[in-house]
Amino acid sequence: MATLGDIGVSAAINILCAMAFLLAFAILRLQPINDRVYFPKWYLKGVRSSPTSSGAFVRKFVNLDYTSYLRFLAWMPAALKMPEPELIDHAGLDSAVYLRIYLLGLKIFVPISFLAFAILVPVNWTNDTLESLKVEYSEIDKLSISNIPKGSERFWTHLVMAYIFTFWTCYVLFREYQRVASMRLHFLASERRRPDQFTVLVRNVPPDPDESITELVEHFFLVNHPDHYLTHQVVYDANKLSKMVKKKKSMRNWLDYYQLKNERNPSKRPTCKTGFLGLCGDKVDAIQYYTSEIDKLSKEVVEECDRIKKNPKSVIPAAFVSFRTRWGAAVCAQTQQTRNPTAWLTEWAPEPRDVYWNNLAIPFVQLTVRRLIVAVAFFFLTFFFMIPIAFVQSLANIEGIEKSVPFLKPVIETPFIKSFIQGFLPGIALKIFLILLPTILMLMSKFEGFVSLSSLERTTASKYYLFLLVNVFLGSIITGTAFQQLNTFIHQSVNEFPRTIGVAIPMKATFFITYIMVDGWAGVAGEILRLKPLIIYHLKNFFLVKTEKDREKAMDPGSIGFGTSEPQLQLYFLLGLVYATVTPFLLPYILVFFGLAYLVFRHQVINVYNQEYESAAAFWPGVHGRIIAALIISQVVLLGLLSTKKAAQLTPFLVALPVLTIWFDRYCKSRFEPAFNKYPLQEAMMKDTLELAREPNLDLKGYLLNAYIHPMFKEVKDYDTVDEGEFENVLVPTKRSSRQNTPEPSKYNGSTSPSLSHIGREQQLYSST
Amino acid sequence: MATLGDIGVSAAINILCAMAFLLAFAILRLQPINDRVYFPKWYLKGVRSSPTSSGAFVRKFVNLDYTSYLRFLAWMPAALKMPEPELIDHAGLDSAVYLRIYLLGLKIFVPISFLAFAILVPVNWTNDTLESLKVEYSEIDKLSISNIPKGSERFWTHLVMAYIFTFWTCYVLFREYQRVASMRLHFLASERRRPDQFTVLVRNVPPDPDESITELVEHFFLVNHPDHYLTHQVVYDANKLSKMVKKKKSMRNWLDYYQLKNERNPSKRPTCKTGFLGLCGDKVDAIQYYTSEIDKLSKEVVEECDRIKKNPKSVIPAAFVSFRTRWGAAVCAQTQQTRNPTAWLTEWAPEPRDVYWNNLAIPFVQLTVRRLIVAVAFFFLTFFFMIPIAFVQSLANIEGIEKSVPFLKPVIETPFIKSFIQGFLPGIALKIFLILLPTILMLMSKFEGFVSLSSLERTTASKYYLFLLVNVFLGSIITGTAFQQLNTFIHQSVNEFPRTIGVAIPMKATFFITYIMVDGWAGVAGEILRLKPLIIYHLKNFFLVKTEKDREKAMDPGSIGFGTSEPQLQLYFLLGLVYATVTPFLLPYILVFFGLAYLVFRHQVINVYNQEYESAAAFWPGVHGRIIAALIISQVVLLGLLSTKKAAQLTPFLVALPVLTIWFDRYCKSRFEPAFNKYPLQEAMMKDTLELAREPNLDLKGYLLNAYIHPMFKEVKDYDTVDEGEFENVLVPTKRSSRQNTPEPSKYNGSTSPSLSHIGREQQLYSST
Repeated sequence: MATLGDIGVSAAINILCAMAFLLAFAILRLQPINDRVYFPKWYLKGVRSSPTSSGAFVRKFVNLDYTSYLRFLAWMPAALKMPEPELIDHAGLDSAVYLRIYLLGLKIFVPISFLAFAILVPVNWTNDTLESLKVEYSEIDKLSISNIPKGSERFWTHLVMAYIFTFWTCYVLFREYQRVASMRLHFLASERRRPDQFTVLVRNVPPDPDESITELVEHFFLVNHPDHYLTHQVVYDANKLSKMVKKKKSMRNWLDYYQLKNERNPSKRPTCKTGFLGLCGDKVDAIQYYTSEIDKLSKEVVEECDRIKKNPKSVIPAAFVSFRTRWGAAVCAQTQQTRNPTAWLTEWAPEPRDVYWNNLAIPFVQLTVRRLIVAVAFFFLTFFFMIPIAFVQSLANIEGIEKSVPFLKPVIETPFIKSFIQGFLPGIALKIFLILLPTILMLMSKFEGFVSLSSLERTTASKYYLFLLVNVFLGSIITGTAFQQLNTFIHQSVNEFPRTIGVAIPMKATFFITYIMVDGWAGVAGEILRLKPLIIYHLKNFFLVKTEKDREKAMDPGSIGFGTSEPQLQLYFLLGLVYATVTPFLLPYILVFFGLAYLVFRHQVINVYNQEYESAAAFWPGVHGRIIAALIISQVVLLGLLSTKKAAQLTPFLVALPVLTIWFDRYCKSRFEPAFNKYPLQEAMMKDTLELAREPNLDLKGYLLNAYIHPMFKEVKDYDTVDEGEFENVLVPTKRSSRQNTPEPSKYNGSTSPSLSHIGREQQLYSST
Repeated sequence: MATLGDIGVSAAINILCAMAFLLAFAILRLQPINDRVYFPKWYLKGVRSSPTSSGAFVRKFVNLDYTSYLRFLAWMPAALKMPEPELIDHAGLDSAVYLRIYLLGLKIFVPISFLAFAILVPVNWTNDTLESLKVEYSEIDKLSISNIPKGSERFWTHLVMAYIFTFWTCYVLFREYQRVASMRLHFLASERRRPDQFTVLVRNVPPDPDESITELVEHFFLVNHPDHYLTHQVVYDANKLSKMVKKKKSMRNWLDYYQLKNERNPSKRPTCKTGFLGLCGDKVDAIQYYTSEIDKLSKEVVEECDRIKKNPKSVIPAAFVSFRTRWGAAVCAQTQQTRNPTAWLTEWAPEPRDVYWNNLAIPFVQLTVRRLIVAVAFFFLTFFFMIPIAFVQSLANIEGIEKSVPFLKPVIETPFIKSFIQGFLPGIALKIFLILLPTILMLMSKFEGFVSLSSLERTTASKYYLFLLVNVFLGSIITGTAFQQLNTFIHQSVNEFPRTIGVAIPMKATFFITYIMVDGWAGVAGEILRLKPLIIYHLKNFFLVKTEKDREKAMDPGSIGFGTSEPQLQLYFLLGLVYATVTPFLLPYILVFFGLAYLVFRHQVINVYNQEYESAAAFWPGVHGRIIAALIISQVVLLGLLSTKKAAQLTPFLVALPVLTIWFDRYCKSRFEPAFNKYPLQEAMMKDTLELAREPNLDLKGYLLNAYIHPMFKEVKDYDTVDEGEFENVLVPTKRSSRQNTPEPSKYNGSTSPSLSHIGREQQLYSST
């Protein structure tokens, strides 16, 4: 068992690690050559451009201004400086609310830590159970509930504290839910006009032998929403087009590359080979060749576009239907259209960039079958994932390899390589699986048939959380594979299971402290360093980048990655709540994690991550639900622990806690969740009326005409625009000279964007109501 | 253990019992004096009137026409004669669909019985496990799964049959759900204009300091549904008025009585005393006294009405809001109105007669608290109801009575009385509790805050089913109070519990066969005899009835009583499904039950029961869900049973069954349930358009003006109408002479009601689509 000293050593190592990461980050971010790695968000916003265009050659790559190194932790206050309304404008409501989860952690655990250290620690400390038992124990155990003798009256303290912690957590959760719901509603209300406010996604349009789908949709809505229907857009199946556009894109890149080459060295016309990968075939003039190929492809693309638009079979039975007013759209999205609840299904249209086009055509019955398959597959993935890995591991042993590839035997038999294979290979299979896991879960969610990227991420998050809960939390406690746990669970009686966990929980405290330091401290500090994107960017820059546009593409801003980051973060809520009453010594480590992570991710959200969609914090019900689940798990664990401590008189009081918590959750659900899946008519009417007064002659139909066109068609159009030489103006409206430091966004935005002060004012308004 | 002989004796007794009941019914129903007991439905419809008005004196009471006795089973074909569309018109869709539950039982269990007897019985019979084990066994056990040796390959048969039974049940359930959903939609669509089609119930109107509730409601809907809002009615708190109207009613009864008396014997003015219960006080002229009292009360009632209508405090924050079109109402009922999902809650208005007025004013937070309280209370009621009863029983023992009332000692010590107390009293406490149980559950549901009688009955049904499941089904199997079961369940491992039940199930077959015969055969035959209403009617007739109106009131048609009858009926589905694979010998008993009950209840629905509300079969999702629950229980029980039989290789196949069943249930939910809680816009639009074409000048506002007035105000108005002598014409539009036999409704209705042939035509239409 680890002593305080061991923990201290571990802490020192991890703090040093984290410090090293932060220091490396502070130095690397100042180098102009890394600018696109550490500030891609500003590039995407068009506020910053490559520093290569100005100054001396060396300055392009290394920052020689030594004063900037002195302020190497300047990013920390800078990250905190941007006020929330501005952050919402800069990075979207999703990001701003995501950061609030870390704040929520601080809000929950700071008071709980104080209380636990002020009351529980002395109560635990002033016993000598562990000493009298003459077992091996550490100082941490002396601070924990293990130090209290069986049947002691002191357990009342833990009971009362469990109640206080639960009430505090629920109170904070309630306030936060209220706040997020009002932020969401305010965001939706104060937002400028967006196509998805007027649009409803209609799926499962039943086939009709006499009418095409577009006629059918138009007639249906003209009849059933006569006063509100405005227009609609059918959805095309554009897989083939998508491939052609990709090919054309790559050719255009090559053309750009050769043109650049030619410009730099006009004396020699560049040539290329037409065969496989440019390695064989006839040698031709590259610029001519690619220009003619692109012309040919352009024509084909246009033909394919026409073919798709003319062929009724390439229309899938779904459509985006737009209404004259937000009121009309709100009505249509929330009501049932026909007798058959599996046809003409309506729901709010996601943002155009949020639509996952591949899933729009799945019929209703198939959807339910897919859900069943995914549920069963996920169950097996969670509980039996060790089986295939064990199989791979058994294949990857020395004897196996020697047998299948005997000529490698002398190499393998080398002591170093042998120990490497034996020590490393079995782990690698597991590691690869864990790295692939989020992708696998995302594929499962896609197979399930969700129609927006945001909902895909949300379901992936809930799947990943379940996986982590079973395999990391329970797996560490019961030590054994999930399958063995399942077996234990089935063969143990219902009240035995919490006991098994309850007994193991205090013993695992030191393990989880180490876990928090490694994953939570050093891991988060590693996140800000962005080692992987840094390396990949420079590799690409060195080997692949031909044009400025390629450099644009080599830049990988990444995104928050809600599907994987939120479940990992939830684990800390779980640990904190479970250990709050059992081993309060663990709480400060969690506080450090939440504080550091808040800083780091706020910085990343401002400077790095790209916002892929805006769901207006639609994920909050999931976040709330998972914290509630953690709370209930902590209560059940305490119940099990106390029942082994012969404190049976406390059981009825503890049983009431989960009941109350579940009730609280249900209340919150009915109180706040409608804000996340419905759109109140009053709000819609208010916005409609306002808009009518402000812009009575608005051409809404023109505005909505091409909002929900398939991205492929858009891309085709964009490239056509490029041909006319307008590309540059369209994509990057303003070009500013590079700024070597973190931009001070507050000042900048405050002075240039009139919309922000407007939001600020409204923000004041709604916080006062 | 009961042998075949024992079962035979029991069957003979129960069949004789049932026969006796049916014979008694056949004779009693022919007596004119019992006419109001056995044919009240026809009285309520105004088609039949008291037979006392015509014929000789004796004929009023006894039927002397001996030929009618010869056809004493004539009611059976008569009950089957009325076709379903006519039944819907006669007794409402609720009753017609309720009868379909019995038919559903036949549809599920007839093929299952054939298969089980053709395949399972031979497979079970051709073993000699029980003989070789040399245990005591009966012939029934030889037919059951107990006769198959451990680890036998024959269990594959049971596995395959479990699959076939599950698929068949699901198929029948699916078809039935489809049919009921389409019946409901058709009923709602083909119905004539009803106020609730245009009306939405709005609750939780937030208080406003500047506006009264009626102004607030009007303004809100004028703003947010400008094109559709028509009118609204606020809801008054009319408790005091209700009391006064009741008092006035009783006085009017007395006045009628004395006037009748005076008419019969004009020489003597009747007198009465004004004091307590008419026993003391001054003697006055009765007619004068009551006339003046009624006048006084009438004035007070009018004053109270005015006071309520003028006092803004007597308006509760709820209103019935009516719209110009069904489309507008459908939209408002299905959408959220404001940001705050706990204010301006809208839902479809129940029928006016279906409204439960007392619950309209409960605020949102209180509702959720009430739900928590009821959930906890119901849990304790189900699992701990034996504790207070045991306490009462312990009080009611001989020593306790002797101690508390010592002077009774000599009486109690009499052997006969002593044995009576000891044998009977403890049982009586339990019996009283069981009789009161539905009332208790209904009170709980009322406390929970449902706003319509139909939803009250539905939740009562689901509570009662849970109670029966735990205390009758599990209670009979594990023998012991529910609390002991709970204890067993907590202390047993998860896979141990199905085993315990699985082992006990085959042994309890004979018990359940007896139960089915007593409760299902004799009980149902007793239902048609209506012994309780018969006795109560004649007692009232003899002692209380003063006027014809009183006789009207003494008649108690009762109703189907969905809240209690459906859960009891569900128990047979449970038994049938559980025993289908285990002891097929039980199935024929269930078939007899379903057949007999279908006959009896069809007769009762046609001739007896009064329809209290029309919910258009809104209860079907509950019925479907409970049968699914029974199916899953049967699968789990079989799983447990087979796992004790060392047939472990079958377990994975059996585990798939409940998973598939749950998936099927979810599919049905999404496929059909919207038909039960939403109203498709297409249908609404169709009806609106049709109506506009047919009656362009309809005064809808006038039609809806007083539809949702509190029943008390209506009653006040009715009595005012009576004063003007229009009462008779209003209530009983047609009077026909009594018909001694069961009316042959087919002919009668078919010829007189034009609306019926219309329905029949539409019925054909929708069955062909």
